[in-house]
Amino acid sequence: MKPDLVAVVIAGGSGTRFWPVSTAERPKQFLPLFGHRTLLQATVDRLQGLVPPERTLVVTAARFVPQVRAQLPHLPAGNIIGEPQARDTAAAIALAAVVCRRRFGNPVMVVLPADHVIEPAEEFHRAVRSAAAAARGTRRLYTFGIRPTYPATGYGYLRAGEPVQPPQEDTATARLQHFRVAQFREKPDRQTAEQYVRDGGYFWNSGMFIWAADTFLAAVERHLPEHAALLFPLAAHVDTPAWEEQLATAFGRVPKISVDYGIMEKAGDVYMVAAPFSWSDVGGWTALADFLQRDAAGNAARGVVHALDAAGNVVFCEDGAEVVALVGVEDLIVVRSGNRTLVARKDRAEDIKRLVEAMPGQGG
Amino acid sequence: MKPDLVAVVIAGGSGTRFWPVSTAERPKQFLPLFGHRTLLQATVDRLQGLVPPERTLVVTAARFVPQVRAQLPHLPAGNIIGEPQARDTAAAIALAAVVCRRRFGNPVMVVLPADHVIEPAEEFHRAVRSAAAAARGTRRLYTFGIRPTYPATGYGYLRAGEPVQPPQEDTATARLQHFRVAQFREKPDRQTAEQYVRDGGYFWNSGMFIWAADTFLAAVERHLPEHAALLFPLAAHVDTPAWEEQLATAFGRVPKISVDYGIMEKAGDVYMVAAPFSWSDVGGWTALADFLQRDAAGNAARGVVHALDAAGNVVFCEDGAEVVALVGVEDLIVVRSGNRTLVARKDRAEDIKRLVEAMPGQGG
Repeated sequence: MKPDLVAVVIAGGSGTRFWPVSTAERPKQFLPLFGHRTLLQATVDRLQGLVPPERTLVVTAARFVPQVRAQLPHLPAGNIIGEPQARDTAAAIALAAVVCRRRFGNPVMVVLPADHVIEPAEEFHRAVRSAAAAARGTRRLYTFGIRPTYPATGYGYLRAGEPVQPPQEDTATARLQHFRVAQFREKPDRQTAEQYVRDGGYFWNSGMFIWAADTFLAAVERHLPEHAALLFPLAAHVDTPAWEEQLATAFGRVPKISVDYGIMEKAGDVYMVAAPFSWSDVGGWTALADFLQRDAAGNAARGVVHALDAAGNVVFCEDGAEVVALVGVEDLIVVRSGNRTLVARKDRAEDIKRLVEAMPGQGG
Repeated sequence: MKPDLVAVVIAGGSGTRFWPVSTAERPKQFLPLFGHRTLLQATVDRLQGLVPPERTLVVTAARFVPQVRAQLPHLPAGNIIGEPQARDTAAAIALAAVVCRRRFGNPVMVVLPADHVIEPAEEFHRAVRSAAAAARGTRRLYTFGIRPTYPATGYGYLRAGEPVQPPQEDTATARLQHFRVAQFREKPDRQTAEQYVRDGGYFWNSGMFIWAADTFLAAVERHLPEHAALLFPLAAHVDTPAWEEQLATAFGRVPKISVDYGIMEKAGDVYMVAAPFSWSDVGGWTALADFLQRDAAGNAARGVVHALDAAGNVVFCEDGAEVVALVGVEDLIVVRSGNRTLVARKDRAEDIKRLVEAMPGQGG
């Protein structure tokens, strides 16, 4: 275990893609979509042996702080940072970096979304250690590139530039591939995505980052000076009674921008490790289906499903005592939660969000 | 009101067609599928002004007697006749006839399934009065023929024979058409049904009957002598403490046969009134849809439905607080009840029964 790592778990997310199980008040990271642990809990569980709880921070919306504390009772209460407003990832990570700098000096930050599925944990640790070794004491901003397994149109892509030598200090990581990132690419259309996959030099942008706190803070200062001007002075108030009030004043004025747009796409020293682990951002019901049990007809289900001439459906029941019967239907998403039921065509999964946002009291 | 009418409401039914709202223990006649009254209650409500409660009998499975009493508290308790076993309609109606004969002499029986929808009540009364007037003191077995509104394959048909003069005694019924029934036809295939509709001389077999008790008992004696031998002796035990035991002994040995197969198709003196009312046997979810509210896209719903590019669906929520969201789906049946959810293609509605019967604890 490297003593200088600090994990920063970003638990944002609006919750419309997993309606009706997730709602504005219950975004997906707080839900036990698989087994009994929530995605947030699984993200922190995955750090075991890599980063200790006292060096694990969670950034979330202020209203979710009690929920995060309840789900992660072994984390020090002060490690849950509540954002008074949603200001996108650049502000969230910069805020975490300010706290890191104050509490831990210049640690290597491992920034992780709270709602990804990564397996196995050992390979994830190996990749973090390799990236951290390369980022430590350098000005490199590191990310993980995921080798595409299909031409996804829902992810951004990284174009790999020249390979770089992995750090020598950690022999266990010798076989991991490091690249300079030549370019960030927006979510492509289908044809472009197919081209990327054929090309072989494109990776999915995982949204995970590894860098020294000072490296990142310098990048914020250079590329997002407003963020720096508003958030850096908060360092003086970390762990003081003035924190909440100062944070509320400063944070509300920070521009809304993602760390990808605001920093990564502008910075020069961006590198990636080709991930040796399997990864999913579980972006919706169809992605979740990959993690559910399947019957012979390809129906992926959680809950008791009785099917007659029904194939390729995704059925998810929040309550295990639910029974769903399917007759003659194909390629549907059927979800049950409380008094809410969703029936959608799989190829229209992207539109669930649209419908839910228009529903009174359900949207983000 | 004709003082000699007795209504016999047959509340059988297994409940698989309306799964998941109906189950083996909650067949459709006991459910408030429309508004707040159950189909059974609506059937008895419809008799108001035609047959008084003390002359209204209900025949049901013995296990449903408490449920029927609870739903029809204004009926004398002794008017609910519990069948110890299911022996189909010939036995149920013959049993009712035996009770009728004993209690009421030789009334005109109006035999009505408990799960049909008929409107308006006034026209129904007019038709009953006309058929009763014709059946009274004659050996005629009367039924109602329903003019087909589409080439239904789920109903039996009656071929109308020569028209007969309606009874003169009731001027209000003068315009109703009476026919001898030339033939009973089984549920036809689509092509045959289309032929029937074009022909104009075919009517749906409504399963409602009007006849003098003695006429029917004579028909039972002639066409179903086993029924007569087993059930007629029960007359001596009506309203005595021995009733239940005697009934249990006799009923278990009665052959299972419907009144259509066992009597109507063999009897010669079968007549029909062309029904002046609208009628549905509400045979399943698609039939029920005709009675639900429709949105502009033709989604018929009970419950709160949010639809995006969804058309022609039937949504039924037993609990009015349920919310169903539909995205991109067409011509589905979506039903919510308790912990049970059905999603079926409308054109596969007939197969719901098959699936449910295979489910442990759900089938009939």
